[in-house]
Amino acid sequence: MARRVPPGDTLPRYVCDACGEIHYQNPKLVVGAIPEHEGRILLCRRAIEPRYGYWTLPAGFMENDETAAEGALRETLEEAGARIELDGPFSMISVPRVNQVHVFYRARLLDLAFNPGEESLEVALVAEDKVPWKDIAFRTVAITLRHWFADRARGDFGFHAEDLPLR
Amino acid sequence: MARRVPPGDTLPRYVCDACGEIHYQNPKLVVGAIPEHEGRILLCRRAIEPRYGYWTLPAGFMENDETAAEGALRETLEEAGARIELDGPFSMISVPRVNQVHVFYRARLLDLAFNPGEESLEVALVAEDKVPWKDIAFRTVAITLRHWFADRARGDFGFHAEDLPLR
Repeated sequence: MARRVPPGDTLPRYVCDACGEIHYQNPKLVVGAIPEHEGRILLCRRAIEPRYGYWTLPAGFMENDETAAEGALRETLEEAGARIELDGPFSMISVPRVNQVHVFYRARLLDLAFNPGEESLEVALVAEDKVPWKDIAFRTVAITLRHWFADRARGDFGFHAEDLPLR
Repeated sequence: MARRVPPGDTLPRYVCDACGEIHYQNPKLVVGAIPEHEGRILLCRRAIEPRYGYWTLPAGFMENDETAAEGALRETLEEAGARIELDGPFSMISVPRVNQVHVFYRARLLDLAFNPGEESLEVALVAEDKVPWKDIAFRTVAITLRHWFADRARGDFGFHAEDLPLR
């Protein structure tokens, strides 16, 4: 696999040396949820790298053949064993340094029978004053949680689009 | 390049027969703009397949090393030769049949010196009663335009998330 500019193109692409197939590298969508129950938010402590041991919202790479919303439901079930109902997108944050766009949905827990999946050490419902801000795994998760608590305090949930810096 | 389930994985992936590299296939983001000037919207007539000759909003695949907003600006410049200022995301529509998510930003034209790029036959500012609804290239563009005109009539622009059916 080598990186070169294919004929008629303007940017270098990954081209297979053996079969010549061009693999376009585009940003990936990470989809997740902010599952709420009586004012507390469901967080997962990561059992995998990167950021092993740090806390995150349930989220992961959107797969083919699903919608963004379906991906958020799937990831929440896989990582937290939790069944949720979505309320609509809440944040969309571009992370050009790693070529990702993170989308988080507002959500309500349908029951309390959650438990950590293979990628989580533990799962917990956390109140605002108990959020482990120093141990949040990803900046997009911290930004999303801060907007969520701020919007709740205002009594009006909006939609938040942001960009993280490239470097 | 063959499709098989790599060791430790659960879904079939594209694996290079020669070098063994795994190429994950995830949905791609298409980013675009709804450029407005005095109530009219900038539309492009496509000079490429698919949907040659049909009308669309300026939009295209988000590239690596850019944010979603930067991609929308770039595509508008490439396809319509138009300089715009973005007002924030307006619609996000999953299209699982083709493994894409389309995101359109509200935008204002900065000047009227637009002209068709290589991928457009013509570019025009179109009023609501002149929109060629039967000749719109993509369903996500028609949905986005309908929301835009409806929101303008209400005097309140929201954010619209939808899913198109898989089949």
